[in-house]
Amino acid sequence: MFECDEKRMKDKIDTFSKFGDAGHGGITRYSLSPEAHQARDEFAKRMKAIGATIETDDMANMYATLPGTESGLKRIVMASHCDSVKNGGNYDGILGVMGAMEVLETIAASKIPHRHPITAMIWTNEEGSLYPPAMMSSGVVTGKFDKAKMLASKSVLDPSQTFAMALDASPYKGSEKNRLSPKDYLAMFELHIEQGPILEAAKKDIGVVTCVLGMCNYRVRTYGQADHAGTTPMSYRKDALFASAQLLIHLHEQLDKLPKDLVYTTGEIKCHPCVHTVIPDEVDFSIDARHEKPEVVAQVVDILKGIPKEIAKCRTETALAWERDTVYFDKNLVSYVKESADELGISNQYINSGAGHDAQFVSYLMPTTMIFVPSKDGHSHCEIEYTSPKQCTAGASVMLNAVLKADSRMN
Amino acid sequence: MFECDEKRMKDKIDTFSKFGDAGHGGITRYSLSPEAHQARDEFAKRMKAIGATIETDDMANMYATLPGTESGLKRIVMASHCDSVKNGGNYDGILGVMGAMEVLETIAASKIPHRHPITAMIWTNEEGSLYPPAMMSSGVVTGKFDKAKMLASKSVLDPSQTFAMALDASPYKGSEKNRLSPKDYLAMFELHIEQGPILEAAKKDIGVVTCVLGMCNYRVRTYGQADHAGTTPMSYRKDALFASAQLLIHLHEQLDKLPKDLVYTTGEIKCHPCVHTVIPDEVDFSIDARHEKPEVVAQVVDILKGIPKEIAKCRTETALAWERDTVYFDKNLVSYVKESADELGISNQYINSGAGHDAQFVSYLMPTTMIFVPSKDGHSHCEIEYTSPKQCTAGASVMLNAVLKADSRMN
Repeated sequence: MFECDEKRMKDKIDTFSKFGDAGHGGITRYSLSPEAHQARDEFAKRMKAIGATIETDDMANMYATLPGTESGLKRIVMASHCDSVKNGGNYDGILGVMGAMEVLETIAASKIPHRHPITAMIWTNEEGSLYPPAMMSSGVVTGKFDKAKMLASKSVLDPSQTFAMALDASPYKGSEKNRLSPKDYLAMFELHIEQGPILEAAKKDIGVVTCVLGMCNYRVRTYGQADHAGTTPMSYRKDALFASAQLLIHLHEQLDKLPKDLVYTTGEIKCHPCVHTVIPDEVDFSIDARHEKPEVVAQVVDILKGIPKEIAKCRTETALAWERDTVYFDKNLVSYVKESADELGISNQYINSGAGHDAQFVSYLMPTTMIFVPSKDGHSHCEIEYTSPKQCTAGASVMLNAVLKADSRMN
Repeated sequence: MFECDEKRMKDKIDTFSKFGDAGHGGITRYSLSPEAHQARDEFAKRMKAIGATIETDDMANMYATLPGTESGLKRIVMASHCDSVKNGGNYDGILGVMGAMEVLETIAASKIPHRHPITAMIWTNEEGSLYPPAMMSSGVVTGKFDKAKMLASKSVLDPSQTFAMALDASPYKGSEKNRLSPKDYLAMFELHIEQGPILEAAKKDIGVVTCVLGMCNYRVRTYGQADHAGTTPMSYRKDALFASAQLLIHLHEQLDKLPKDLVYTTGEIKCHPCVHTVIPDEVDFSIDARHEKPEVVAQVVDILKGIPKEIAKCRTETALAWERDTVYFDKNLVSYVKESADELGISNQYINSGAGHDAQFVSYLMPTTMIFVPSKDGHSHCEIEYTSPKQCTAGASVMLNAVLKADSRMN
């Protein structure tokens, strides 16, 4: 068994935390921003220092590769992203990049023999915070998203700017022939923070990820009548916000009857006209529900479609925004991760991913899996996101050994 | 008794509806916009045609005055506004201006003798839709608002534009000495649509307005914890939106126990970060409550201050945004309106105003009152706003006779 170096790992965590430092312990590092380019420059510098070859593709995805001992073999890739949400933390995404770098640095430093070329990779624009959608480049590379549509994506801060402009301005825009593909790549691993409280609560340092949860995302709307807040007696009102509040409570009551490991969320609510002196005439809210089993997701859909047609004198409506089936990771790769953690004596458990990741798209192309490390208090996408250097290094060590198992057992 | 002319009134309604016509039966006519200037030009043209003198003050308020038979007497003014909300209707505000014009036109056409000068007036920026706040110019003229602060008000559409710039660009910006003041003005009348369903339901053509309701406006906030929608088990969540939904239901239950003529509204809700994949960490909603009696408003405040400190594991907070006492209109002017409607044989009833109006600020300076006409289906601040030409003319006729009573009985 091989182990990564905690001191070297901590140095990377400290260094990358500076790129986009927002001043309160976290970062804002939108994809292809100057801050993200600083992170890419650092990645390139460190990877060149160990003799890796740097390539980039047409979506500015970056690949740093150490050659293997046998010629003609496909690459094994470890990948994640270096962009963050607004006021995000120092781990979501970048940990998987730093972990991949740490694996290559350990291989180089300890001259660990390996047959296949091994690659550390940065996916462009996983968060989609500035240029939606999320997982943009893995979507394009795996054929899930139309490239022309993605290039036209407008900046949420300045609609005159498109993703194509940001890409054209990047020194890391390369050639389409360099894209990750099943022709050149054998398997992909992604190290990531859990983004939830399960590992910490169970006192486990590694999550052996088996799947990305299936989900459905609906929009629920209530339609009332806009009238003046001061002049319309209560009995005459059709208040779309009051109707939506009742509907939210109703949905919680119904959904709480389903299995306890279902998660569902209303994260977004829009109220029209949203003026304090006007009774709302239209309210629109999101509902996102996730579970491994399709039959549980189907029960959620039944509840959503079964809401009362009218509530508080307001008409209701539900519409599917999108849905996805549970994506199961490659059984062999999952077993390499489990074996590696066990052999290293690192506490671990099987876990699923409630969040989407680039790995989920890649799993349609080639054997893919993920490794989770704990998130302190379960927080992510926020500045207090934290995983200790020891836990980060444990994640990298597990990935190193799992990659070496793939290297020796797969062709 | 004198009566106004329905044909002439309808011509005004049809003409003014063109200025800012938004294409679906209503208008968007922000204060001091090109569309609002078209309305002002038409006002000036028609008032000059009957021999009225046009003056404007430093807030671009416009005054068209017919002289009286006795010299040295103060003016009686009839005033409202010509600006609208976004996608507003053809009656809110402009009816009071058209009614004032119609009164002067009737006086001129029928050579009705009157002792005092009588003025038709346009208040600038009553809605505050482009440059907040509402009732801006009456606020400045009556000393309720600081003029420098109002001049600095930024356009909600383009923050590089201030109200001062719009005012400087207006040909109707005049001199501060022309402002409405108790030194030069004896009394003010404002004809307005009811903006509610009460008169229509009671089959009355005139509302004799006695007061503008007292109100309180609070912000209610719930604070939770932002976490990932896919990775946070339900039992770990602090969902600020779920807490706010529960709080809204709680407030409805409590407030519905108070007198039936209380009106209360949550028109605005803001959710942070308002992303469908993130559990909301902060939700902020408005609550606006109005009632004539201070003791009922005080009960509302008790309920707001008495909300649970914690709900659904989220901390709650309430903060006063503003409040105002009930403003009673002048008893003599109210009686002139009532007498006039009765003598004309027009069905009428006493009513209060749940909405704020320029008249409410002016009532601190001089005897003031309002006259309401019905709003079809109670709708206002929307394109389907409607009052028939007959009802509009009835409103003008009542104002004409009430003004003449003030002219003969007041000095």
